[in-house]
Amino acid sequence: MEMEKLVSLCKRRGFLFQSSEIYGGLNGFWDYGPLGVELKRNVKDAWWRDMVTAHDDMSVLPGAPTEYEMTGLDCTIIMHPQVWKCSGHFDLFVDKMVDCRESKKRYRWDHVVGAWVTGAKKQHGADAVKAEVERVFVTVMDSENPLPQIETRALKYFGLRAKDASKIEMESKTAVLSSFDSFEAVVGPDATTTGTLTDPRDFNLMFPTTIGALGGEDDRAFLRPETAQGIFVNFRNVVDSTRVKIPFGVAQVGKSFRNEITPRNFTFRSREFEQMEIEFFCHPDSSQKWYAFWRDRRMQWYKKLGLSGERLILREHHQDELSHYSTGTADIEYAFPFLPAGEYGELEGIAHRGDFDLRSHMEGKLDEKSNPLAVQLNEHGKPKYRGSGKDLTYRDEVTNERYTPHVIEPSAGADRATLAFLCEAYREDSAPDDKGNMQTRTLLSLHPRIAPIKAAVFPLVKKDGMPEAAKEIYLALKQKFNVFYDEKGAVGRRYRRQDEAGTPYCITVDGESLSDKTVTIRDRDSLEQVRVKMDDVVAEIESRINA
Amino acid sequence: MEMEKLVSLCKRRGFLFQSSEIYGGLNGFWDYGPLGVELKRNVKDAWWRDMVTAHDDMSVLPGAPTEYEMTGLDCTIIMHPQVWKCSGHFDLFVDKMVDCRESKKRYRWDHVVGAWVTGAKKQHGADAVKAEVERVFVTVMDSENPLPQIETRALKYFGLRAKDASKIEMESKTAVLSSFDSFEAVVGPDATTTGTLTDPRDFNLMFPTTIGALGGEDDRAFLRPETAQGIFVNFRNVVDSTRVKIPFGVAQVGKSFRNEITPRNFTFRSREFEQMEIEFFCHPDSSQKWYAFWRDRRMQWYKKLGLSGERLILREHHQDELSHYSTGTADIEYAFPFLPAGEYGELEGIAHRGDFDLRSHMEGKLDEKSNPLAVQLNEHGKPKYRGSGKDLTYRDEVTNERYTPHVIEPSAGADRATLAFLCEAYREDSAPDDKGNMQTRTLLSLHPRIAPIKAAVFPLVKKDGMPEAAKEIYLALKQKFNVFYDEKGAVGRRYRRQDEAGTPYCITVDGESLSDKTVTIRDRDSLEQVRVKMDDVVAEIESRINA
Repeated sequence: MEMEKLVSLCKRRGFLFQSSEIYGGLNGFWDYGPLGVELKRNVKDAWWRDMVTAHDDMSVLPGAPTEYEMTGLDCTIIMHPQVWKCSGHFDLFVDKMVDCRESKKRYRWDHVVGAWVTGAKKQHGADAVKAEVERVFVTVMDSENPLPQIETRALKYFGLRAKDASKIEMESKTAVLSSFDSFEAVVGPDATTTGTLTDPRDFNLMFPTTIGALGGEDDRAFLRPETAQGIFVNFRNVVDSTRVKIPFGVAQVGKSFRNEITPRNFTFRSREFEQMEIEFFCHPDSSQKWYAFWRDRRMQWYKKLGLSGERLILREHHQDELSHYSTGTADIEYAFPFLPAGEYGELEGIAHRGDFDLRSHMEGKLDEKSNPLAVQLNEHGKPKYRGSGKDLTYRDEVTNERYTPHVIEPSAGADRATLAFLCEAYREDSAPDDKGNMQTRTLLSLHPRIAPIKAAVFPLVKKDGMPEAAKEIYLALKQKFNVFYDEKGAVGRRYRRQDEAGTPYCITVDGESLSDKTVTIRDRDSLEQVRVKMDDVVAEIESRINA
Repeated sequence: MEMEKLVSLCKRRGFLFQSSEIYGGLNGFWDYGPLGVELKRNVKDAWWRDMVTAHDDMSVLPGAPTEYEMTGLDCTIIMHPQVWKCSGHFDLFVDKMVDCRESKKRYRWDHVVGAWVTGAKKQHGADAVKAEVERVFVTVMDSENPLPQIETRALKYFGLRAKDASKIEMESKTAVLSSFDSFEAVVGPDATTTGTLTDPRDFNLMFPTTIGALGGEDDRAFLRPETAQGIFVNFRNVVDSTRVKIPFGVAQVGKSFRNEITPRNFTFRSREFEQMEIEFFCHPDSSQKWYAFWRDRRMQWYKKLGLSGERLILREHHQDELSHYSTGTADIEYAFPFLPAGEYGELEGIAHRGDFDLRSHMEGKLDEKSNPLAVQLNEHGKPKYRGSGKDLTYRDEVTNERYTPHVIEPSAGADRATLAFLCEAYREDSAPDDKGNMQTRTLLSLHPRIAPIKAAVFPLVKKDGMPEAAKEIYLALKQKFNVFYDEKGAVGRRYRRQDEAGTPYCITVDGESLSDKTVTIRDRDSLEQVRVKMDDVVAEIESRINA
């Protein structure tokens, strides 16, 4: 599938618009249109129902264990700034920037990638550059722990970005070298000589804001870069206000914000996005069991809603990819069509976070070994940020054991899931038009549970009482589902419009309907049409959607 | 009802927590807990269903006309900054600040209210102050157009806030004077003399942020203070991507942010809140009809969901309260228990906005008479801000008339609606406990459609097969509703817990159940218990909820 076709359909049919489009748009921000808002609502509602309120409803996801509880939260986007200091985001949630000593201007690191190479080639010729690059790489690749050195030197001398260190390790030195040829930037876009760029500086990806009118340092706050922290800081409140017992999960759906330096790939990497996160609290001894459970259960969920096939994979992180506090992380990844063949994009991460987060918010400082990121020591060896000092441990009422729970975090992106469902659903086939000629047909083969419109009701023609009968069926269906009534134009064109919208069923009232009280139900994917009694239409649609 | 009791129940039972509470909380920010998140979801879902997807379902809101269409949108919180310049928010969405010439410090105006009076009383005695106040007020009240002067002078000399000018006009001079006695602040909290405060300056209530890493003026953006503008700037996209014909409405639910100087009254005035807004586009000639329609329909919706009685009123704005572009605005107001007797707080405003917004985004400048706020002229008489230049007019396919639609805007607060439902639902009565003694009972008499938990299922005792039978009923109900299973403790206590949670129905499996296959259903409000066949429980609960 060509991504351009999906992007075009999304705009044309009202799934997605660029934010503030009439003012030239805003990079990394997307609005959901009339069909898109229903699709995304359905994705989020299916997640909430399957994971939270009906997590133990075996009719939806077979094999759900009943021995855990689930509950929800809805926290604010702006939280107390200390939350982000103790979580580590204030110091560590960063990307890189560089300055040019000559022009005194500042650039995003990724914008000047390859700058030295391009500039130096002009000055010294390609061969000299290649020799120099090779010399540095041979040096660092041969050293004991080459990755940090590659990163530092590659940036300093070549402007090469090495964000994904493990990827560079896997690529051969030669491949890295040859890729230099495609860099087009010149060193310090406004400089006349090479080597003018500084070492990179950290740029925090949290959007800053200010609370209140005074505008002092104490009033500085941030838009949350993840919903998870709202759950951790409310752990005590949830335990005290409900009677949940460990193991239990707390779920939250909501907007998060990351000031991405390079938003790209349609809604895949946006600056404003929506997350569906669960923090699952369990006893340390059973945490591996629950980690395995959530990894499998979340895969099952995507499959159940249509992402079957080879495009969906579960990828366990290598040991050296793991955060130091994590004993396991798995990504659910999807082969989005905008990625090169063989590459996958993350839909969801399932992480075993240990007791990292609760301890960070409790103590603010832990021993360096188990939690060096929670807090930085100042020059006196004291913690730079203090935790809340509140007790975030849990006491088991049966064993009387008190412990800090371990956490399994299935963290999904609502926009990415929606985009994956759209990519998977998009297809073209051939179908006969009103005159029986075969024509290319575009359809979105969305799972009925997430389809924006569940059924469309048509009178075959706009006379002979057909509109009245069709409207009656429409109103009966409307009490249960989002349905659509359409009486305009040739029925074939009406079918095609619904195919593009992803509507799984079209119900048509025709000449026979008025005498025998039946209608046809047309299936979007198989194009099969069956006659059903008018009185049975609601039950028939209901059973197909819940099948 | 005492507000403190509701606030306490909300915290204790997990409806609402202060945001970031473990770090001391954040003024004006509230998190929804496990029960609160379900309640608010239900309020928003009921609104979306009744107003958007099933707006023409007469079984929900009788009298719904079918001759208009409704559709939805979900836009970003961060939009292009030009949106807020053309909407007027950049220049006009402000509150006041004052500086102290002596201490060189800055204060929020409302924090120094009455400052001069208090300070001067200390210096000159109460009588001298009263005489001076009276002199100024007599002067300005006698002049032709006293209000702006009262505001300026009252601030300058007395530190008196006169934000609601029309209110001051209605109050007598004497009442204003006597109210001075209750002011407790001293002039310029850090000053030694009076009269040191400057005239007030505007403080924009939009939360600022910065997009991207460069941090220049062009990268400055704002969190939306209302969802409405996302609909206006997408008007063309909605018309082009759907086949909606005027009259039609576009609905949106989402977070908005206002940097309130004085957040207060629980969730009523928060800095981060959620809106449910409709922009309804119609022909200018029928706009008055639709204005009346929406005013009545929205009142009906609140009543239908439980806000019946005298606490809910519809208040038409006086002519002089209207925005200059509006030909009518009505507020739906509720007598919140935290307000003084006879005062009401706004739940929703229904405004006739004419073509103000679409023209502002189209032209950026309109003639001063119809739209002086859309744009300010610079010193050369040119518009300060340019509109998009995009065509936001509408062409009627039948009459071929092209016009700029008029807009009716029903703008509701999801948090305020939720709070009103909670306030209305809270009550105390007497009910017998397990031993038959009458005890005070606290309940939330929430409408079943919005109740967080629809039904709770109990085995009377934890033996004799009762838990197994109860769990079977629980799982059957769970396929349709959010239900709760509880087998712990005396059944009377379990009932009370559900009463406090607002659960309308409790289903109990007792000794008889196993022989005659019946259970009791207990009604939260009437306490009436009826026996129902196990097989009929799902249908019975379903019919009660949809009654």
